[in-house]
Amino acid sequence: MYKLVLVRHGESVWNRENRFTGWKDVQLSEKGEQEAIAAGQRLKAEGFVFDKVYTSVLTRAIKTAWSIMSELDACYLPVINSWKLNERHYGALQGLNKAETAEKHGEEQVLVWRRSYDTPPPALEKTDERYPGKDPRYADLDENEVPVTECLADTVERVVPYYEEYIVPEIKAGKRLMIAAHGNSLRALVKYLDNLTDEEIMKVNIPTATPLVYELDENLKPIKNYYLADEADLEAAMSAVANQGKAK
Amino acid sequence: MYKLVLVRHGESVWNRENRFTGWKDVQLSEKGEQEAIAAGQRLKAEGFVFDKVYTSVLTRAIKTAWSIMSELDACYLPVINSWKLNERHYGALQGLNKAETAEKHGEEQVLVWRRSYDTPPPALEKTDERYPGKDPRYADLDENEVPVTECLADTVERVVPYYEEYIVPEIKAGKRLMIAAHGNSLRALVKYLDNLTDEEIMKVNIPTATPLVYELDENLKPIKNYYLADEADLEAAMSAVANQGKAK
Repeated sequence: MYKLVLVRHGESVWNRENRFTGWKDVQLSEKGEQEAIAAGQRLKAEGFVFDKVYTSVLTRAIKTAWSIMSELDACYLPVINSWKLNERHYGALQGLNKAETAEKHGEEQVLVWRRSYDTPPPALEKTDERYPGKDPRYADLDENEVPVTECLADTVERVVPYYEEYIVPEIKAGKRLMIAAHGNSLRALVKYLDNLTDEEIMKVNIPTATPLVYELDENLKPIKNYYLADEADLEAAMSAVANQGKAK
Repeated sequence: MYKLVLVRHGESVWNRENRFTGWKDVQLSEKGEQEAIAAGQRLKAEGFVFDKVYTSVLTRAIKTAWSIMSELDACYLPVINSWKLNERHYGALQGLNKAETAEKHGEEQVLVWRRSYDTPPPALEKTDERYPGKDPRYADLDENEVPVTECLADTVERVVPYYEEYIVPEIKAGKRLMIAAHGNSLRALVKYLDNLTDEEIMKVNIPTATPLVYELDENLKPIKNYYLADEADLEAAMSAVANQGKAK
């Protein structure tokens, strides 16, 4: 039997400001930093040990991983960064306040963009300063690989093949892995692991900095999964995520 | 022409307590954390950009690297950790206070252990709780690879081949590298790069968290090197290192 631990990054300054973040490389808020430390302490108290860490190329996920590693006295673990684990790209909505967008386009349209499985938001132009091809960390990618917008289906299309190609062989080799990533890149994994429908995954809200443990059988099918958190904390965290994007 | 940046970690809690640290995995002191941030700010102000970071498996060097990467907005850089870049192993002296050791064994003997090129301190027993083979990060090493004590010559014997095998090809491929390491693993590199004698390297004191820039020609021979620091700060930092190990 194998274990795999997924962790969404702690609260970012844009989560707090209720803005569409996507690939914008925002920092953790002070609360988010504290959440990440608490996640590390929880993992340590429960006796978790890792051999390797996967994360995205976005600072908020990396720093969440670093804080957890630090609490586990395991800063020396190899860390693999991949843009394939990045948050869903939010296209031209990146940087907009969710409540403002809801007022402008209607709460329903925002919910469609946030929660429809296959309707991407308006795309970024390549001349837009937010276009990822202008960032050195994506400079080596083929132009047609660089997303200009994504629906969750698009995110699944890059996360799941990455998981199958790079992460599955490590788990099968007995490596104990943590994946520190984002609300939607983790949803992509959860959809795949739990074999959820396009509709079901829309209702899954992954709380920030709360370790989600999967116990997997020899074929890497989930036997069970659970969050490392107190029940009350967990409900509050999930409902905080679900309430984002409502007009205020 | 190539550039290579070496950085010794910021002050650790044991540097501050004047104890022989070696492979003991002590934390940065608060001052050390600030030094690392300042090093990152300095590198940023001078326009340094890196493609990859090499460091040891010891927390104080890793966290120094992380702080610098964070200041450079480059947390996503690949980090390669190797025990070959660890501090010199201080054998049975690890954990002892330098001033106390000087009182007990005489200042001269301590200076020999600290500054002789080829006289190692007394070795650790394998039953000693400080024996590295008991630490999971060294568990995969061959027993005869795990040091139980080192003189600087021994440290050179592991650092330089690692540099030649792994780091040189990256520099020649045009990668801009930072190596965040330790007083003696960096001395090993400096001895090699500057072609210093066994006696000359003994007089080199590398200050904490002060970027040391090497400009290298097409054969990776140094054209020049310099610290990124104000002259006065640099002299104070170097003399602080030189004065460790004197009886108080």
